[in-house]
Amino acid sequence: MARTLETTAAGCPARLMARSAALEPVPTAVVAAGSPVALESARRATALGLIEPVLVGDPTAIADSARRIGWTLHGACVVPARDDAAAARIAVALARSGDVGALMKGHIHTDTLMLAALHPKNGLRTGRRFTHAFHMTLPGSGRELVITDAAINVAPSLNTRLDIIRNAVELWRLVGGSDPRVALLSCTEEVTERVPSSMDADRLTRLCQQEVPGATVFGPLALDLAVSAEAARIKNLTHPCAGAADILVVPNIETGNALFKALVHFLDAVAAGVVLGAAVPIVLTSRADPPAARIAAAAIAQIVAGRRRSATPGAPYPTTAAKGGAAPGLHA
Amino acid sequence: MARTLETTAAGCPARLMARSAALEPVPTAVVAAGSPVALESARRATALGLIEPVLVGDPTAIADSARRIGWTLHGACVVPARDDAAAARIAVALARSGDVGALMKGHIHTDTLMLAALHPKNGLRTGRRFTHAFHMTLPGSGRELVITDAAINVAPSLNTRLDIIRNAVELWRLVGGSDPRVALLSCTEEVTERVPSSMDADRLTRLCQQEVPGATVFGPLALDLAVSAEAARIKNLTHPCAGAADILVVPNIETGNALFKALVHFLDAVAAGVVLGAAVPIVLTSRADPPAARIAAAAIAQIVAGRRRSATPGAPYPTTAAKGGAAPGLHA
Repeated sequence: MARTLETTAAGCPARLMARSAALEPVPTAVVAAGSPVALESARRATALGLIEPVLVGDPTAIADSARRIGWTLHGACVVPARDDAAAARIAVALARSGDVGALMKGHIHTDTLMLAALHPKNGLRTGRRFTHAFHMTLPGSGRELVITDAAINVAPSLNTRLDIIRNAVELWRLVGGSDPRVALLSCTEEVTERVPSSMDADRLTRLCQQEVPGATVFGPLALDLAVSAEAARIKNLTHPCAGAADILVVPNIETGNALFKALVHFLDAVAAGVVLGAAVPIVLTSRADPPAARIAAAAIAQIVAGRRRSATPGAPYPTTAAKGGAAPGLHA
Repeated sequence: MARTLETTAAGCPARLMARSAALEPVPTAVVAAGSPVALESARRATALGLIEPVLVGDPTAIADSARRIGWTLHGACVVPARDDAAAARIAVALARSGDVGALMKGHIHTDTLMLAALHPKNGLRTGRRFTHAFHMTLPGSGRELVITDAAINVAPSLNTRLDIIRNAVELWRLVGGSDPRVALLSCTEEVTERVPSSMDADRLTRLCQQEVPGATVFGPLALDLAVSAEAARIKNLTHPCAGAADILVVPNIETGNALFKALVHFLDAVAAGVVLGAAVPIVLTSRADPPAARIAAAAIAQIVAGRRRSATPGAPYPTTAAKGGAAPGLHA
């Protein structure tokens, strides 16, 4: 990715790293850690003080991968698991018990990890839908944006979209420290039956006035009216969100996916993806993610976990209570 | 917008202008021409040799606007119309009779113009769905892409998507002169019931082998796998469309709208929008469009109309027969 004044040597956005620097490393379970790529991400995040690694997986594969990347694993905790499903269950149990404050996907299928996290009794449910958010940093300006949901909820209902918004608002407040302006994207700023997403956005705007405190939520907005002050001026739209959105809520997964990938591939933006609505933040990475995105995602998870706990230093993770059965109390 | 070697002084992509230079100006009806912005676009397109303007609308408003922008209207034809709906009907009639080869939206609501164009008997129907395509030129590389449908068809059925693809393939062949690689966008490259757009893309891929000659069509692809050779390499996808798509077919209007606007607003790409599937190309402009986009759209319309007719020089426009009642034979 492009090196600018806004990025550190690791390519990670400098603003995120500055926020991370004030926080302790967060104990983080790397789920199915036995691959060089997964381990390399863990090593970098450890070296940068973002995580205390808890490497869950096949100990032989972990040791082999560590040798291949030249990591002594000094200071890392290894928790054996006989297969991927077991690694996911153990990592989730570690989060329930407070032994780790975040999960990071290693060499495992996303569905396997999420199945364990979503388990009704032994998972990480909090009562909110699990939703995905990309925290984006744009090069040049260092402008930050959240795009949600571009990875988990395919065609979210209004209720799911409410949780998507709630989770993203909490993320923005934890990471950015201020009340966000939330734009509900459609392809038009007119409310018209011809475009169901515009009707949904209009309904959500009204719902959020009651349901989502600490944020200004408005839609429908097309992308230009959400992010460009000039476009808002030309179309005489004076709402606080118009042209100045911090969070872009997309009507469907295809819109979010194309939007964040356009910013990554054509603009060299850094996309840090995280699953929210679980008792601990879960970092999902893709094979095609560059190192900067992996580090940025670890930083986001650290900031979310660390700041949630900041009211009670020394408390166990997680501070968002998992609902369901008792935590099994596994200790790494 | 950014000035690069790939743009002319007018900000219009140099490649489009070079293709236009080989063609005669196309008689073009400017529908509801009586506003300074509409007339300024017409004047620039006329000066660049893209159109022969046929200004349809209120003659007083046209004359007033011409004075305000300092255009003598020398060489322009003015066709009076008592209101917007009449202007749309007259412009459509001029296209049916072959007196104009393209329509350009002036100061008129899109719906009013399209209602006349879609009239079952006196409109510009050809048997294909009317679809919208954005021809995009990316700065720096001058790379060209078509994004479709980002403006008309909200949640297109498979049959409508077939016409979206057919129209875009014809556009690419007329403008670019070669067989396009068409990517059917989803949020994933896996075919899964969880993501209906991936199932649709898979079905369309097979349908297009029979239905759309002169193109290579493939999906589902997420945006990175459609446009980035590097992402395709990392994910071991070797299809000719992977990482090298010319045309991006989006599953819904919100995806297309956010995608083209991201390229315009964050990347300074030039988006030239045109309605296809009608007997003549129809240029729809938005209030927020910069001059470069208006000129580029006029150039696209000229290239489409001019090259369709190139087999029979001197023939009347349109060369794509309108279906329905007899053309009324209005002459400007």
